[in-house]
Amino acid sequence: MAKRLGKYAFSFEQPIYIAGWGNIVGQKEADGPLGSLFDRAEPDLYCGKETMEQAEVFLQQTALENALARAGLKRQELELIAAGDLLNQCISGAYGFRNTGIPYWGLYGACSTMALSTLTCGLSIESGLCRLAAALTSSHFGTAERQYRYPLEYGGQRPPSAQHTVTGSGALILSKEKSPVRLWGGAFGSIVDQGVTDNNNMGGAMAPAALKTLQFYLKETHSSPADYDAIFTGDLGSVGKAVLMDLAAKSGIDLEKNYQDCGLMIYDTTKQDMHAGGSGCGCSASVLTAYVLPKMKEGTLKNVLFLSTGALMSPISVMQGESIPSIAHLIHLKGDQ
Amino acid sequence: MAKRLGKYAFSFEQPIYIAGWGNIVGQKEADGPLGSLFDRAEPDLYCGKETMEQAEVFLQQTALENALARAGLKRQELELIAAGDLLNQCISGAYGFRNTGIPYWGLYGACSTMALSTLTCGLSIESGLCRLAAALTSSHFGTAERQYRYPLEYGGQRPPSAQHTVTGSGALILSKEKSPVRLWGGAFGSIVDQGVTDNNNMGGAMAPAALKTLQFYLKETHSSPADYDAIFTGDLGSVGKAVLMDLAAKSGIDLEKNYQDCGLMIYDTTKQDMHAGGSGCGCSASVLTAYVLPKMKEGTLKNVLFLSTGALMSPISVMQGESIPSIAHLIHLKGDQ
Repeated sequence: MAKRLGKYAFSFEQPIYIAGWGNIVGQKEADGPLGSLFDRAEPDLYCGKETMEQAEVFLQQTALENALARAGLKRQELELIAAGDLLNQCISGAYGFRNTGIPYWGLYGACSTMALSTLTCGLSIESGLCRLAAALTSSHFGTAERQYRYPLEYGGQRPPSAQHTVTGSGALILSKEKSPVRLWGGAFGSIVDQGVTDNNNMGGAMAPAALKTLQFYLKETHSSPADYDAIFTGDLGSVGKAVLMDLAAKSGIDLEKNYQDCGLMIYDTTKQDMHAGGSGCGCSASVLTAYVLPKMKEGTLKNVLFLSTGALMSPISVMQGESIPSIAHLIHLKGDQ
Repeated sequence: MAKRLGKYAFSFEQPIYIAGWGNIVGQKEADGPLGSLFDRAEPDLYCGKETMEQAEVFLQQTALENALARAGLKRQELELIAAGDLLNQCISGAYGFRNTGIPYWGLYGACSTMALSTLTCGLSIESGLCRLAAALTSSHFGTAERQYRYPLEYGGQRPPSAQHTVTGSGALILSKEKSPVRLWGGAFGSIVDQGVTDNNNMGGAMAPAALKTLQFYLKETHSSPADYDAIFTGDLGSVGKAVLMDLAAKSGIDLEKNYQDCGLMIYDTTKQDMHAGGSGCGCSASVLTAYVLPKMKEGTLKNVLFLSTGALMSPISVMQGESIPSIAHLIHLKGDQ
């Protein structure tokens, strides 16, 4: 039984482990500071497929295969897949895992999906539903850009607060079998909307959601940022990160020492002309699986809070003048050497 | 701990109850055979709001309020909301429950969402995450039509196999407190794609997914259709229902006696000119909460299998020539007088 620690925070009472992880990214991500850490990079946005949507399906399938390989498992051993992505009707997962015969739990959390799917798998194991589950998500610059903004051919200008959707996918395998990283606990966020209507400033819209989940998790676990080796947010980018640090400081939470944002880690924003940094479900998913988990396995990081943040608007809702509802889900990872 | 009965089927070991249910529908649903059973009907597709998307938000909020009222609870007592809908980026739930402070688990299962959200809440309670959770979904003829097909003003012709998206929402409150209907078990379906590419025949595309989940559930629980008072599918409509009955008969599963489809129950398809029947997340959600659960409470139905079926394509994937991946999730309800 998961142990409720408060309104948001809970811990897993059974040991639940990250048995494996895998990822794949595109060229821009491979050219970034973490480039050498990814399992595989595809230079072509189409990944050799007919459409970019098919390419994103391929990203999810490949990230899962890489995670299975690292865990020493075959796909047919999985008892559950929990996935979601940014595309309308979440088609990357739906097409990626059709006719596999594996029970499928479809999720929508926008860029919070890596943490959401990990919590889903953790609770599935905790509840007794399964013993081995895969959590994954993806995003793709080309499919997201034409769905949320403009066709690539249009060459639309982007303001400095805009983020660049990461082309990439990350997958985790969760299991009851002992391995070096344990899923210790987490928190499902609630939906926060502070009235930001500029969908070129999603970091600013999401920062209050990240603060809320983090603040409650710290309070309910009686901990402070100094108790962790590192705290990561999914994809706030430079604007959102600054907003979060400012809001956190005003709430008495010091994020100066050990806090990083995956959206700023994945690109060299200046050299690569990436404006406010990376975004997309694949951003936190690929940084988690290429940087955070390997560092936990080798013991460099032992106690980590990882928040994926999602902006839950749609192009329709933005055109209708609505503000941007946001959410942040949190996973707490511990080294278990 | 949930008890795994096989690859798909599981039962809840803790008693988990449906503490309350609520719904709201539009005029066409109110004019149908179940019209008098709904909690509330809105004659206006806009429900007095500025946009039909806002109207759909209102449907979810109202269904939840009705469910809370029936359960004798206040919204702030909820520890989790699990929701999803058909709109791009699932905006009905995101806008419906922003700034409520309630942890939110976003789902995507297309028209399978009522069963998916119910399973999510059931397992959340089973895992210890929470004691009181809301499962809900919605659909809206106007928002779905312009997103998936044509603007209403275009007046596009519909082929006889097409279904009519239900305007409506249904919500359940799940709890550990004893009440007359118990969530006994269920099954997460896997994604089935038999190659149907006609998105005016979603019933035909979804029928094989319904068969697969039902077949495994019966096999893994060592039961047959005759063991249940009733078996319902979400929204196969007349074409899909005929396909399912045919496929089931060929598999030795007799659905002649006690099987009904919510898509055919909600409209008088001939008098109301509804072609193959109703569809949309709100179809199975409103029939479950207006017809099935009240009959279980009064004891007319005691042992029920309820499958919600979802077609997981998007307009983009259909335009790209892809076939329609489908899924069916199952919930098993028992009277517990």
